[in-house]
Amino acid sequence: MGKIVDVTFTLKTYKYEKPFHITNSISKEATNIEIKVILDNGITGYGEASPSYRVNGERAEALMAMEQFIKEQIAGRDLRDYRHIFEITDKLLSAPSIKAGIQYAVMDALSEEIGLEVYRILGGAKDTIETDKTVGIDTVENMVKEAVKIRNEGFNVIKIKVSEDLKKDIEAVLQIAEATKGAEYIVDANMGYTPKEAIHFVKTIYSKGVDIAIFEQPVPAHHIDGLKFVRFHSPFPVAADESARTKYDVFRLIKSEAVDFINIKLMKSGLSDALAIVEMANTAGVKLMIGCMGESSLGINQSVHFALGTGAFLYHDLDSHLMLIKEEFRGKFRQEGPRIFV
Amino acid sequence: MGKIVDVTFTLKTYKYEKPFHITNSISKEATNIEIKVILDNGITGYGEASPSYRVNGERAEALMAMEQFIKEQIAGRDLRDYRHIFEITDKLLSAPSIKAGIQYAVMDALSEEIGLEVYRILGGAKDTIETDKTVGIDTVENMVKEAVKIRNEGFNVIKIKVSEDLKKDIEAVLQIAEATKGAEYIVDANMGYTPKEAIHFVKTIYSKGVDIAIFEQPVPAHHIDGLKFVRFHSPFPVAADESARTKYDVFRLIKSEAVDFINIKLMKSGLSDALAIVEMANTAGVKLMIGCMGESSLGINQSVHFALGTGAFLYHDLDSHLMLIKEEFRGKFRQEGPRIFV
Repeated sequence: MGKIVDVTFTLKTYKYEKPFHITNSISKEATNIEIKVILDNGITGYGEASPSYRVNGERAEALMAMEQFIKEQIAGRDLRDYRHIFEITDKLLSAPSIKAGIQYAVMDALSEEIGLEVYRILGGAKDTIETDKTVGIDTVENMVKEAVKIRNEGFNVIKIKVSEDLKKDIEAVLQIAEATKGAEYIVDANMGYTPKEAIHFVKTIYSKGVDIAIFEQPVPAHHIDGLKFVRFHSPFPVAADESARTKYDVFRLIKSEAVDFINIKLMKSGLSDALAIVEMANTAGVKLMIGCMGESSLGINQSVHFALGTGAFLYHDLDSHLMLIKEEFRGKFRQEGPRIFV
Repeated sequence: MGKIVDVTFTLKTYKYEKPFHITNSISKEATNIEIKVILDNGITGYGEASPSYRVNGERAEALMAMEQFIKEQIAGRDLRDYRHIFEITDKLLSAPSIKAGIQYAVMDALSEEIGLEVYRILGGAKDTIETDKTVGIDTVENMVKEAVKIRNEGFNVIKIKVSEDLKKDIEAVLQIAEATKGAEYIVDANMGYTPKEAIHFVKTIYSKGVDIAIFEQPVPAHHIDGLKFVRFHSPFPVAADESARTKYDVFRLIKSEAVDFINIKLMKSGLSDALAIVEMANTAGVKLMIGCMGESSLGINQSVHFALGTGAFLYHDLDSHLMLIKEEFRGKFRQEGPRIFV
C-alpha cells in the first residue's frame, strides 16, 4: 500500500459574503491552507487548515513556511500506521490547524486506498447531521433581520454572537427569540463578559421565558474558575470553546467540573485530540458540540466526517462555508439547508 | 458491503498446564466462548469471550444463554457502522467479555472485508510488543523454580502473584529477584492486602534494593481511598486492575488521582471502553498495561491487535494462552518467546 511521497501547502483566500463580526474581531476574509498528502501510488488525500490568530495564535504565512519541515516529518510513512502520523503531528503545538489538516488528509488518502469513507473508518455512527447558522454582531434590527432570514432558510438552530454591549445583547436575543419562534439558540459571548455580567445576561433572558440551548464561552479563555462560577449559576448549559483547545485543556475543565458542554473544533485540536476529547467527555457526562473557524467546504468536510463517524455531537455549528462567497464545492458530503449527509 | 446475518456462540474448555493459583482462587481450566459474526457475503469475524466470575461476576452458561438475544440486537447491521454495534453492546453491563468478543469479531470481519488488519484499523502504532509470563502462588521454592524457567525461556518481565501470606510473599519476591537478575517484575496482589500491609510489603522490598516495575491492585476493588493511600506511600508505581473495569471506573480513579497505572483488559471493558481508557489515561499522564483473563490464542489475538494498533501500553501481560494445554493456534500474529508481532 501507499507511502507518503509529498506534502503540499497552497494558500487560499476566501471572502466573507459580509464582514463577520464577533467580540473584538471583524473578519472580511478567511485565509486557509489547502493541504495535499500525495502517495507513491498516485492517490492524493486532501485537508484544509483554517488558522485562527485570535484563538490559536496562528498566522497563515508562518504555517506556509513550515511546508518543507512537515514534509520531512511524514515523508516515507505508511498511511496504515496513521497513529504514527498522529503522534508526529501532535508535536505541532503552535500549528494546530496544520495538525488537523494533515491528519485529515492522511485519513482521506487512507479512505481512498481501502475504499471506505472517512466517517466509516471513524465508526459510521450517523448518516446525517444538522448544522446551525450564525448571526454576527450588528445592530439589533439587523441581527433580527438576519435571524429571520436564517430561520426562513430552514435552519432550526440559530447561533447568536454577543458580548460587546450587555444591554443590547439581551435585547437582541429576546427580539430574535420573539421573531423566530420554534428555533433553538446557541449564544456565543466569545470571552467578552465578566462572570457577573454573564450571570446577569442568562438570568435576565431566563426570567423572560426564553431558552438558550448552549451559552458559549462567557468569560476569558484562562479564567477556569470564572467559567465554573458561571456554570453553577446559569440556568442554561455553559460551554467552553476558547478555553478548550487541546485534550489537556479539556481534561482540566472536566476535572474542575467547569462546564456542561465542550465545543470541539478540529482546527484547535486536530483529529487526535478531538478523539480523546470525545471519549473523555462521553465518560464524564459532559456534552459536546462541534464548531469551525473559517473553513471552506474542504475544511468543513473534515468536521462533517468526524461528526458523522463519532456521532458524538448534540449540536453542529458547521456553517463557515455558507458564509463565504461561493467557492468550488469540495466536500465529500451533500447539504440541503441545515441537513448534511453523505 | 456485508451485513451481519448470524452470530454464534460455542463453549470451549481449555485446561491449564498446571492449576493457576492466585489470591483466593485456583483455576484448573478456562471456560471460554468462541464467537462468530457471520456476514451475508460469507465473511466470518472471530472473537472470544473469556468470562471471569471473580472480576466481572460472569458465568459462561449464563452468557451462552444470551446468544439469541445478542443476535437479535445486531443482525442486519452494517459492519462499517461499527460504532452502532459498539453502542448496542455497551449495554451489556453484566457481560463485558461478550461485549469484547462481539466487538472484536465485528472488527475482524471488517478487517477481512476491507483488507486491512485490525491493528491497522486501530492506527498501526507498533509492529511488535513483548509479553511477560506469570508465576502463580506456590511455595517459595516452587515460585523461584518457575521464575527461573520463565527467565530461561527468554522472558524479560516476570509477573509474580502474591498476597495470601505477607511474610512469604516478601521472601518469594526477594528470592526470585536474586535468581533472575536483569528481569523486571510486575507484582500482583489481586486485592489481597490491607493498605498498611501493602505499604509494608513494598517498603520492605524497596529497602532490600529490589525494584518493582508495577504493583498491581494491592487492596480490594472498591477501596479507592485505600488504593490512593498505597499509591502515595509506595516507592513503586501502583496499578488498578479489579478496580478498573469500565471507562467510568477509570474516570473516577483518574479524578481521584488514585493510581499510577491502569491494567486494561478487553474482557473487563470491551474495545469501546478500552479505547476511551487509552485516551483518558494518555491525557491525564496515567500509564497503561494490558492484561488478560483465561483467553486462548483466539482471545489473546484481540489484545495483541489492540495493543499494536493503539501502541498505548508500557507492559503487556498477555500470557494466558501460554499457560493452557496447547490448543490449535488461532491468532493472527506470531510469537517467539516473549516477542509478539504480525
